[in-house]
Amino acid sequence: MYTLYLGNKNYSSWSLRGWLAAKLSGAPFREVPITLRGTYNPDNRAFSPTALVPALHDGTIHVWDSLAIAEYLAERHPGMWPTDPAARAWARSIAAEMHSGFSTLRNDMTMCIRERVDVRPWSESLAANIARVEEIWTESRRRFGQGDAYLCGPFSLADAFYAPVAFRYQTYGVQPKGAAGAYLAALLAHPFVREWEQAALAETTIIDADEPRILYRDKLKAAGHA
Amino acid sequence: MYTLYLGNKNYSSWSLRGWLAAKLSGAPFREVPITLRGTYNPDNRAFSPTALVPALHDGTIHVWDSLAIAEYLAERHPGMWPTDPAARAWARSIAAEMHSGFSTLRNDMTMCIRERVDVRPWSESLAANIARVEEIWTESRRRFGQGDAYLCGPFSLADAFYAPVAFRYQTYGVQPKGAAGAYLAALLAHPFVREWEQAALAETTIIDADEPRILYRDKLKAAGHA
Repeated sequence: MYTLYLGNKNYSSWSLRGWLAAKLSGAPFREVPITLRGTYNPDNRAFSPTALVPALHDGTIHVWDSLAIAEYLAERHPGMWPTDPAARAWARSIAAEMHSGFSTLRNDMTMCIRERVDVRPWSESLAANIARVEEIWTESRRRFGQGDAYLCGPFSLADAFYAPVAFRYQTYGVQPKGAAGAYLAALLAHPFVREWEQAALAETTIIDADEPRILYRDKLKAAGHA
Repeated sequence: MYTLYLGNKNYSSWSLRGWLAAKLSGAPFREVPITLRGTYNPDNRAFSPTALVPALHDGTIHVWDSLAIAEYLAERHPGMWPTDPAARAWARSIAAEMHSGFSTLRNDMTMCIRERVDVRPWSESLAANIARVEEIWTESRRRFGQGDAYLCGPFSLADAFYAPVAFRYQTYGVQPKGAAGAYLAALLAHPFVREWEQAALAETTIIDADEPRILYRDKLKAAGHA
């Protein structure tokens, strides 16, 4: 059985990607919850060379980083990437684009599933990230989404990589239109995503560095809704 | 035949990763050089949805992002990842770690193959990135490098993801010790890496935003060697 080391479900967007990959595999896995405090913890090197989550253990094989975990599991469990080669190439491109990019979206809209807060006006860089996500969702649905509610057909690793974005949009009131908006609703309604959300809502740990109300205190005060 | 869109060989570290993946595939490919100017160029959307390089075209299938290109080619051409499953899981983990991390190393030691410049003292964050790379190289060689000069056995995608680091180390005078140092020398001596270096040295375009002597002008002046 696989063992998956995960951070706080309210905050850890990369953990969510790794966990969705494990759920998608259909294989049984044991979760080891790690309480993150927002700072580097060398103790975590006991299970992950980077001290970061997620990390997957398969016996003596240790895989760290969400995308490596995704590919490791996809090799062993068919159907995690789209089966059509063109859809699979597209799915890998958009997952890799999320993996290495969107730094403003990730920094300025930290995942905090329990929170609801509007931090408009968005910076130019944040607005550009949000526009690119809308383009990806719309174009993926147009090209490969036919007959299913998800990015490239049935729920796949491509959706796993955008699930944290859906929680961010719910938290920060980002409402894409048309096909992108319908996809956002479908993603938030997926049973795996809802299962994670319920677990996140049961958590009580607060990490100041990732807490929107603390991150944006001055901005919210200036806007009169702090 | 594949078509690969690449940026300036002197500067574009991600292009180098994509190009090494294409070379590793053993398949013929056509290169389309794109002259980067250091700013977003919407014209590049004609071949890449992000306007970034590298991008690979395989007929009507377009793959962007270096890691997606690597996985796309690895599906079609055996042997690009290590064949042993444990070595392959490790190789994917270290490639993914490079793909999503090391932002200080990437920003503070921009790839500029033709340049030689020492920018010590390094910031704490930069020194931590350099220490982690040394750990990855040493540990990869210890675990999986036996009998070959490279990270996980024969030259693989794992090496492709660290090749730009080798050029950075050559430029900025970073000299890891022991197994990591021997690996650095082997990587810089690999025929594919040397082929890229020769092409880079033939280029003349200067991108101010990526030019170490411009980036570090004040620091070098203060150190008396500008």
